[in-house]
Amino acid sequence: MSLIQPARIPFDDPQIVAARTDLVAALRAFLPAESVLEKQEEVRPYECDGLSAYRQLPLLVVLPRTVEEVQRILRLCSERKVPVVARGAGTGLSGGALPLGDGLLLSLARFNRILDLDPVARTARVQPGVRNLAISEAAKPHGLYYAPDPSSQIACTIGGNIAENSGGVHCLKYGLTVHNLLSVTFVTMDGELIELGSEALDSPGFDLLALYIGSEGMLGVTVEVTVKLLPVPERAQALLAAYDDVEKAGQAVGDIIAAGIIPAGLEMMDGPAIQAAEDFVHAGYPTEAAALLICELDGTNQEVSEQVMQVRDLLLESGATEVRTSRDDAERLRFWQGRKSAFPAVGRISPDYYCMDGTIPRRALPEVLRRTAELSKEYGLRVANVFHAGDGNMHPLILFDANEPGELERTEELGGRILELCVEVGGTITGEHGVGIEKINQMCVQFSPEELRQFHAVKEAFDPDGLLNPGKGIPTPRRCSEYRELPTPRAHHAHH
Amino acid sequence: MSLIQPARIPFDDPQIVAARTDLVAALRAFLPAESVLEKQEEVRPYECDGLSAYRQLPLLVVLPRTVEEVQRILRLCSERKVPVVARGAGTGLSGGALPLGDGLLLSLARFNRILDLDPVARTARVQPGVRNLAISEAAKPHGLYYAPDPSSQIACTIGGNIAENSGGVHCLKYGLTVHNLLSVTFVTMDGELIELGSEALDSPGFDLLALYIGSEGMLGVTVEVTVKLLPVPERAQALLAAYDDVEKAGQAVGDIIAAGIIPAGLEMMDGPAIQAAEDFVHAGYPTEAAALLICELDGTNQEVSEQVMQVRDLLLESGATEVRTSRDDAERLRFWQGRKSAFPAVGRISPDYYCMDGTIPRRALPEVLRRTAELSKEYGLRVANVFHAGDGNMHPLILFDANEPGELERTEELGGRILELCVEVGGTITGEHGVGIEKINQMCVQFSPEELRQFHAVKEAFDPDGLLNPGKGIPTPRRCSEYRELPTPRAHHAHH
Repeated sequence: MSLIQPARIPFDDPQIVAARTDLVAALRAFLPAESVLEKQEEVRPYECDGLSAYRQLPLLVVLPRTVEEVQRILRLCSERKVPVVARGAGTGLSGGALPLGDGLLLSLARFNRILDLDPVARTARVQPGVRNLAISEAAKPHGLYYAPDPSSQIACTIGGNIAENSGGVHCLKYGLTVHNLLSVTFVTMDGELIELGSEALDSPGFDLLALYIGSEGMLGVTVEVTVKLLPVPERAQALLAAYDDVEKAGQAVGDIIAAGIIPAGLEMMDGPAIQAAEDFVHAGYPTEAAALLICELDGTNQEVSEQVMQVRDLLLESGATEVRTSRDDAERLRFWQGRKSAFPAVGRISPDYYCMDGTIPRRALPEVLRRTAELSKEYGLRVANVFHAGDGNMHPLILFDANEPGELERTEELGGRILELCVEVGGTITGEHGVGIEKINQMCVQFSPEELRQFHAVKEAFDPDGLLNPGKGIPTPRRCSEYRELPTPRAHHAHH
Repeated sequence: MSLIQPARIPFDDPQIVAARTDLVAALRAFLPAESVLEKQEEVRPYECDGLSAYRQLPLLVVLPRTVEEVQRILRLCSERKVPVVARGAGTGLSGGALPLGDGLLLSLARFNRILDLDPVARTARVQPGVRNLAISEAAKPHGLYYAPDPSSQIACTIGGNIAENSGGVHCLKYGLTVHNLLSVTFVTMDGELIELGSEALDSPGFDLLALYIGSEGMLGVTVEVTVKLLPVPERAQALLAAYDDVEKAGQAVGDIIAAGIIPAGLEMMDGPAIQAAEDFVHAGYPTEAAALLICELDGTNQEVSEQVMQVRDLLLESGATEVRTSRDDAERLRFWQGRKSAFPAVGRISPDYYCMDGTIPRRALPEVLRRTAELSKEYGLRVANVFHAGDGNMHPLILFDANEPGELERTEELGGRILELCVEVGGTITGEHGVGIEKINQMCVQFSPEELRQFHAVKEAFDPDGLLNPGKGIPTPRRCSEYRELPTPRAHHAHH
């Protein structure tokens, strides 16, 4: 039995069918017919997000077009106590947008307009369903871009980025979503409109904007966003370094940061990830290497030239067997191509894979890699490692076959133990993917009962009836006590 | 009657005396005698903070030494429903640490140890009563420092900085307190210990750390902090530019930022502030100027040299009548000396002054300066302007005489109108000083009733009985409706 997925609710259960019929009638009173999807084949595309091992058909799907429609939908669900899951592009990797069988799925797909772009103030006001990359595309003619760049940036939406506080390769230098937003307007579960933040430096009162960002759809439904835009750097250049030993690569990461250099990106891949990526995209990676570092520097011409030389020296001193420096933008992009394709590349060599996401202090990197390899052996499951090494955000990819009985469950257990290892060394169970349903058990390891109680209290301050994305993000005390009693080697650590 | 200060509670009111006697007895059961102050002359030093126009003697003062003592004090007050005001160095400028006549004042003065300083991880773990500058002093031998630098940094404590999310001259480049902290441990009103944040990039769950920072002592009492340290820049150099017109100086600020330069500091003073500062410290400022800009650049030698030349050109192009470039560190510090002494300098030319704090979009700078001058004339009160121009954080100083009947009230009213002007142009009523008691009425202008309701709900999630620093930060709905009905030209704007 999966430790993670809740029991499924059948789409055609008579009670569910009756509830659907009722709710559809009420919704059609103020929504056009094409905004309410109720047939099984219509709602099927919404049954999972990027964590596709877990699926559930929603009660029904609504696609509102206006803020007022969102308010009315939430007011209606609030009165009838119908739970609601909001969804952007559904690219999330922790199951945060997994539907509820007895809940409404609210898609923001039609909120896809860029409302305003001010090149002087360097801001863009957009609807939540606008794709991450579309913002940078619109800003490009002004020499500007939106910095956070999750791997899914072609598809993922800014609303989803807010829910997960998404990062990306460039967040080492430019920060997570929270560092690149100015304001958010959202609708509460009882239909009220709240505006957080402003164009000004600081806001009076509690920093509800920061609280809201990364709240995984549990506090409100985003309907408008103002993001900061940055000037496109004059130049970007990348270095690629190969190592015969993962620990040396880890050391190099520390050396670069200690030298006071903040690269635009500093990524690491281990042997299995390198081979999978190279087999897939032929980026020219040295496939015999035990580890590969990609370091990108950006800024003025002068700055980049100096830093490239400095980093090159550091990489060689740390024992790199080979260091390449990109000669032009085409080569720089080729260096990245393998890294950016690492997830689908791993998907090719295994029927299924499970992408973990944890963050550790940089100094713990060699230890965590070694112990992950031990766990991989213990569970008999291959693990490829890809990570944002500069900020200690690791993405171990567990290779498995969901059709082998018990293998998903073993994968979940191994994934959980890797996350708990992150907590043990002073890190956290997420870097940028969120908790969703995937890591909810590990929240019991990361936080004390008092701390979890505080999370619930804050949730209640926004959504007293617990109707917004219930079952995600924060475990109930009962779930934690059950988890702590499981007869596995897991969950035996004290919280931090 | 003051619009701001609540009615005072006499120290020797019989009911207050009885409450004091009771509480002292209960506190002495677990606190040594010297940790409880109950005599009028002992508690007198705590009657106000940096907003010294408003005073109130506390019920009594406690000075705990350990986390456990803080927990027991709060648990006791929680049981007896005694309100609590926590206090660092008492340098705050919005009255956030103003005591309550029927409440306990909890001083963190004895939590003054640096617990750990890790030069490799670049972090310092400190107690909340450690002074801001003491952290940089301890880090200096390792070539590191703590970036946020409020004007009061010699005296103010990191705990107070957290309460107010303090900034300073350097926050344009290095961010506010919230951007320079890794974790905070605090005690809730019912005595529970909560740890927020970690050394890792991101934390799972709601971002309670960001929520807590800047919460003005209303959510908990800080007992431990881990801050980030930064490498001391290789070089810093400053430019001083004089203008015969405030608008031209405002334009120059925009030009520098638009050129993609982020100065370490970018400060502006208007004529009255320049004259007061020069009379006081003889920094060599051109006293006939209508506005002065100070721009500091820091980084590598190379970087600074290039940017100084670039900024110099921009300043001259924008119409500066004179531009000076610091030749050495002594001259750089002399440029700053007048700016850093502006508040006491203004204190010399007026019996009293009131330091406001609002933030506006940079583009609104000329308009806000012009309209502030009009308001100054309307109220017959002089206003000197000093501000962190780079991030639009203004500090108008209103000169007045508290001994003139009605002048404090007129000053409060003028201050309020300046803040409301900030809101009108798309800014906010605070940059770095917090709301405290000073700006609580303007919260009614900044936020809608729904938004204020959300603030109260979050407050209740941490402190259901409203015992932590009540009356600060968030106005009650009743206060807002009373304020909106005042027969003044104020409060007639809609919220944003």
